[in-house]
Amino acid sequence: MTFERSNIAAMSGYAPGEQPRGGDAIKLNTNENPYPPSPQVKQALAEFDVASLRRYPNPIADEFRQIAADLHGLELDNIIPTNGGDELLRLILTTFVAEGEVVATTKPTYSLYPVLTAIRGASLSEIELGAEWELPSDLLAQLAALKAKMFILVNPHAPTGKLVSVEHIAEIAENFDGVFVVDEAYIDFVDPDYQHDCVPLLARFENLLILRTLSKGYSLAGLRFGYGLASKQLAAPMLFKTRDSYNTDAISQRLACAALSSQDYAQQTWQRVRASRSSLSAALRSLGIESLPSQSNFLLSSIPEPYSAPDIYEQLKGRGILVRYFDQDRLRDKLRISIGSEEENERLLNALREICA
Amino acid sequence: MTFERSNIAAMSGYAPGEQPRGGDAIKLNTNENPYPPSPQVKQALAEFDVASLRRYPNPIADEFRQIAADLHGLELDNIIPTNGGDELLRLILTTFVAEGEVVATTKPTYSLYPVLTAIRGASLSEIELGAEWELPSDLLAQLAALKAKMFILVNPHAPTGKLVSVEHIAEIAENFDGVFVVDEAYIDFVDPDYQHDCVPLLARFENLLILRTLSKGYSLAGLRFGYGLASKQLAAPMLFKTRDSYNTDAISQRLACAALSSQDYAQQTWQRVRASRSSLSAALRSLGIESLPSQSNFLLSSIPEPYSAPDIYEQLKGRGILVRYFDQDRLRDKLRISIGSEEENERLLNALREICA
Repeated sequence: MTFERSNIAAMSGYAPGEQPRGGDAIKLNTNENPYPPSPQVKQALAEFDVASLRRYPNPIADEFRQIAADLHGLELDNIIPTNGGDELLRLILTTFVAEGEVVATTKPTYSLYPVLTAIRGASLSEIELGAEWELPSDLLAQLAALKAKMFILVNPHAPTGKLVSVEHIAEIAENFDGVFVVDEAYIDFVDPDYQHDCVPLLARFENLLILRTLSKGYSLAGLRFGYGLASKQLAAPMLFKTRDSYNTDAISQRLACAALSSQDYAQQTWQRVRASRSSLSAALRSLGIESLPSQSNFLLSSIPEPYSAPDIYEQLKGRGILVRYFDQDRLRDKLRISIGSEEENERLLNALREICA
Repeated sequence: MTFERSNIAAMSGYAPGEQPRGGDAIKLNTNENPYPPSPQVKQALAEFDVASLRRYPNPIADEFRQIAADLHGLELDNIIPTNGGDELLRLILTTFVAEGEVVATTKPTYSLYPVLTAIRGASLSEIELGAEWELPSDLLAQLAALKAKMFILVNPHAPTGKLVSVEHIAEIAENFDGVFVVDEAYIDFVDPDYQHDCVPLLARFENLLILRTLSKGYSLAGLRFGYGLASKQLAAPMLFKTRDSYNTDAISQRLACAALSSQDYAQQTWQRVRASRSSLSAALRSLGIESLPSQSNFLLSSIPEPYSAPDIYEQLKGRGILVRYFDQDRLRDKLRISIGSEEENERLLNALREICA
């Protein structure tokens, strides 16, 4: 006998990036930060009082919310702490999208969105990006025609690394009737010269929700800590109703506070990643491998003929180097390569030189 | 403008027990373990490699699943690790209960069940317990008449501490058509003389799911770690589809492994709690306060006239001692008192002696 709901029985689960158990593999496949978390995080863990774990944590991570509110110039009830950004994505669907309603996203996009939408029993509409991976000029008309309840945009985009401007985000928020979710998982790696900051838009648009995560920019993928930024009205039902009652644990709260307080350290890692992004892109080009301009911590690189992307993926894997291949339209000649440490990038380049020799 | 779904707008959120910020309060209100976690947990935290946090955790907590499987005589795919038992409760609703379907539980019961059922948009049916807080003799007929898709039973029961026998659990599992969830949050405090163990029933009943948590028995409420035990068929959609893709973090996984491996230490704390439960119950009786026989880490105690339960609750709170009062049918003359340390229990008794003098 089968007990699960019919849409659960019909769907496929999310496939996480490969996580090799051995320590030798070079993991350039899940967009992890190549540098360790801040020394303050290490200190916070060393000072954590284990005996305190017998008590429930602060249900809503108030200390973290205050630090995040101060960092972004917002108030406590604009901040929604979650067990990784993934939990926030699930929560927005639970809270705002009824069964059968339409969730719109781009094609391609982060592959978790379709999975979460299927679990919710909502209807997913994928809007094709243009030739240069830009949002289509009739995006708002498409959203209106779809009667979309929610539009989820990862910005910078995954897997291309392309950035949509603040002005364009504002235009969408202003003219879209539903909840507009901007997944800024990779925002920390945007070139500071852009002065890109969508947070001030929250004061103007109550339908806008921004997702942040500590997984990438703060080197804490293993900790599972993310947060939402939104108007108090949008944030309230998630903060006070639909969130699991103690959704973040006491250790994670403490370490997340330490990480967010370490802005100088974090920004140094972002700068190093950006510098490596430039040099890796240039070195790949010298091998005949062109990458899209990226504002993220990965490159989407086109494998030129006579080579094939899945073949290069396999050959790299055979050499202990993991990158990401997507068996999807427009992506079958490409590989997504996370920016590694200087040494990891060099080993990747050496392997590619061997393979393409 | 309101964006949340209508059933979210209409519902109230879960109210967690009070968590005073000061360290002086005696917290006998949220059924926390009065003793610290095992020394192995402390050691595991001290040895944790912070640098490893830059990488994603094992998505499904395989190391923990192996330890739990060995402990319970099960296999890896019978174990569903979750971010606290609360996440498992949410997951079972997401996975098995469609909107509008009936979820049955008892009245009274753990107050989170109605909240999660409301978020799911399911219909909650509360089945009245008998005069001695026992399950009604026509329970199965009631479940059938309700066409319940799921029956959630907390066992030992909250807030009474009453235990339903393994034979009775088996009878329900055998004759109920839906998913039968037994929430064993308090199971570790059952007198070992009962030899109560429902886990072997999993081999017989594929509709049975048992919830365990490390919050109480392993003194880790602050860590948020629980797990489900179920047939592989029942577990699979939660393990591989509806769970958030990385639902437990790397530190929690490590500490949960250490805790579950510390059976001797944990059992000592359970034995101390049971001994305190007996002595506290007897001491309360000498003050004229009768408690129900409890197999849990709390007592449900009746406040005799001329005193009133809410008044005693307030007077205790004024003395820095928190207990739980439920403004519900059959509970308005009672207080739920978590078993504290020997010293905390003594301070509670002294306060009650003063109040009732």
